[in-house]
Amino acid sequence: MPLQKSDLSDAVINTYYAVRGPIVARAQQLEQAGKEIIYCNIGNPQALKQKPLTYVRNTLAACEQPGLLNISDNFFMEDIKEKARHILEQSKHGLGAYSESKGIRFVRNAISDFIKSRDSFDGVEQTADPEHIYLTDGASKGVQAALTLLIAEKNDGILIPIPQYPLYSATITLYNGQQIGYYLDEETGWSLDERMLEDAIQEALAKGIRARAIVVINPGNPTGGVLTEDNIRMVIRFAKRHNITILADEVYQENIYKPGARFISFAHVMTSMREQEVSLFSFHSVSKGFFGECGHRGGYMEVRNLPCEVIDQITKLQSISLCANLPGQILTYLMVSPPKPGDPSFQQFANERNAILTELAKRAKMLQEGLNSIPGYRCQPIDGAMYAFPSITLPPGKSDDDYCMALLEQTGVCVVAGSGFGQKPGTAHFRTTILPPTEQIDRVVDALEKFHRTWK
Amino acid sequence: MPLQKSDLSDAVINTYYAVRGPIVARAQQLEQAGKEIIYCNIGNPQALKQKPLTYVRNTLAACEQPGLLNISDNFFMEDIKEKARHILEQSKHGLGAYSESKGIRFVRNAISDFIKSRDSFDGVEQTADPEHIYLTDGASKGVQAALTLLIAEKNDGILIPIPQYPLYSATITLYNGQQIGYYLDEETGWSLDERMLEDAIQEALAKGIRARAIVVINPGNPTGGVLTEDNIRMVIRFAKRHNITILADEVYQENIYKPGARFISFAHVMTSMREQEVSLFSFHSVSKGFFGECGHRGGYMEVRNLPCEVIDQITKLQSISLCANLPGQILTYLMVSPPKPGDPSFQQFANERNAILTELAKRAKMLQEGLNSIPGYRCQPIDGAMYAFPSITLPPGKSDDDYCMALLEQTGVCVVAGSGFGQKPGTAHFRTTILPPTEQIDRVVDALEKFHRTWK
Repeated sequence: MPLQKSDLSDAVINTYYAVRGPIVARAQQLEQAGKEIIYCNIGNPQALKQKPLTYVRNTLAACEQPGLLNISDNFFMEDIKEKARHILEQSKHGLGAYSESKGIRFVRNAISDFIKSRDSFDGVEQTADPEHIYLTDGASKGVQAALTLLIAEKNDGILIPIPQYPLYSATITLYNGQQIGYYLDEETGWSLDERMLEDAIQEALAKGIRARAIVVINPGNPTGGVLTEDNIRMVIRFAKRHNITILADEVYQENIYKPGARFISFAHVMTSMREQEVSLFSFHSVSKGFFGECGHRGGYMEVRNLPCEVIDQITKLQSISLCANLPGQILTYLMVSPPKPGDPSFQQFANERNAILTELAKRAKMLQEGLNSIPGYRCQPIDGAMYAFPSITLPPGKSDDDYCMALLEQTGVCVVAGSGFGQKPGTAHFRTTILPPTEQIDRVVDALEKFHRTWK
Repeated sequence: MPLQKSDLSDAVINTYYAVRGPIVARAQQLEQAGKEIIYCNIGNPQALKQKPLTYVRNTLAACEQPGLLNISDNFFMEDIKEKARHILEQSKHGLGAYSESKGIRFVRNAISDFIKSRDSFDGVEQTADPEHIYLTDGASKGVQAALTLLIAEKNDGILIPIPQYPLYSATITLYNGQQIGYYLDEETGWSLDERMLEDAIQEALAKGIRARAIVVINPGNPTGGVLTEDNIRMVIRFAKRHNITILADEVYQENIYKPGARFISFAHVMTSMREQEVSLFSFHSVSKGFFGECGHRGGYMEVRNLPCEVIDQITKLQSISLCANLPGQILTYLMVSPPKPGDPSFQQFANERNAILTELAKRAKMLQEGLNSIPGYRCQPIDGAMYAFPSITLPPGKSDDDYCMALLEQTGVCVVAGSGFGQKPGTAHFRTTILPPTEQIDRVVDALEKFHRTWK
């Protein structure tokens, strides 16, 4: 008899990943049947017409085919050629060979320099050890590597925000661990409150669940919130008090729209506190920011305050599938070492970057205002990341799953129900990206308004 | 307190992946200290000077930077331009967007055509459903996806050959399953014997281990053996009798050196037997064959005889990390749809392909003869794949681990001890790739001979 569903483990069956769940399957069906779908379910910028950066693709193309460096056409600027040559020389065997399990050394060195430069301010002189950096196939694989390590037993729990990005809930379920949800406070822009953390960990303890780590997503997915330094310091103290590890999902660090706000990393605050007792895993990616290179699956994980013998275990596990894909590694390199002012390619790079970031900020504002203009909707400020997570009032007896499915069927707008991210009982939300082009955002808001007014 | 090794699960601690284990770490140390190392530990062709195919890299570069299609220089042949345009059109959003979780549809269609064409002979008309094909980040990730599904409980066992490729043993340990080793018969060129399979499964049963699947690696890694159709039929009947799934690792399907031998897939034999009760997972990769594109982490998994609801579970799990990297997907496409006779790029493609395959066959023969010329060595025919796995006689009290470490220190030749792959008690082996350039193979054989003669 073939393998049956009943042969599979409960962990596999119970795993649920909303961002690509039944609603997206239905959207694909409708699309194949000829209906126009606006995919707002996932942060996939280049699927919504964002163009890749010329700097990135030119360098990558030259690395894939170094013969292009000799063409007579004036296609490549001098610094791009130099960069491609540098990459080919440093990687030794080009993009077709397995690299070290951690990733190519010069890329890890460049990431280390990037972290030092990003985090050295306010009197902090940041350090970053290239041996504590792992290149990963997108941030998702990094997160899964960390959770593989942290979930050792059935009653090991991971604190995750509610709402959260469902990679976390799905992976914790699949790895036979326990979710410990802590609520973010919607009324204050989804802020992080120490009492909520304490409540969550005590409640888990009462159930016999031992907290092993806390996940913090900053800027927030799906909430759009941006943490302050005080907030981060509070989380670090909390982690220390409870002897747990921090997983800092910082993939939206370039996506901050709130005037005057800046991204502050957990690594920066930890160094400023001279904290050496709390282990930290931080994640970054080429998929978000202004690169939006989701398809290339590039990213890195940096670890801090871990003994050598734990580092060795991570390296061992990474080595089983050999290494992260090399184009993704190179894109990560290009992300952390962009053109500098004065380089021939700088002006074009800066123009393209600024155009994307300005456009994203504009869309965030448009969407936030648009959603708040709909009676029955309430949307917190979109200070960062790429999503809105409005609360919605529903007719009695209806769920946000029903709502999103009906919305898709009637309007072609594909969003993900709040239930997939987690929300306070009795509330209803959905997540939409801010990514559709400006003219589509107006259409989306109009469609939502009309739908919300008439749906029963 | 930071995370400690003692916090990690036994599964993590006990996982062991020999191909990148302590001996490779030591080799990297020695290399950094200035010693010349010949890396024979891993099938990484482009790290040992194999050149990427022009066809592959030209098309990929044009897909990464479509602007290159308009350069005045005559760099790209017409069919390459057409192919790149076709890829960009079919993929809709280029290489920077997440694709469907299974992989881009036109790539899965092309893989389906490839399987049909490869397997339709001897009266068999092969079918292949694009919905049963998953693009993966190299074959390793496909294997791990299958094992995630198949290991549901602690006493679930997976039959693996001895010797095997340590991806299997490592992943089974990490996923809390049980290894059920079945011996290959070294004396008859590492052939697969039904009695060995029965012995293994009965012995496991006696220990309370329930076999869930059997792994077959064909052509064999590390053995170099190539299975006959009869052999494959026997495995399928065995799987049916015991109601287990087959995992067919067929990544070396293009690497067959034995004159007159051909690759026969499990899918072909299953179709010829009209077998619909045995579930099959087959794996292929762009890393081996004559592509040797290890760094791009491309590959696919095809499944057969699985109910829809199990397929849906696989898709769900694949969706958690979104999709395989797009350049790897495109390389897989290029592998299954190469230039045809008459295409402008065909001659160069065929020349490069033939040169690589001829060279590999030559090295396999040289190495096999060279190893067999060393007193105390015995090497079975290298009929396929990329490795030799000679048996060696050791001084009393010494292990093959000692041997390989001493060999590395004295000669700079980095090979992997047989213990990492599994071997009959009382025997000793190591695995070396056949990949070093011809002139290095002579040096390797000389070094081995001298070392073996003098080491005590």
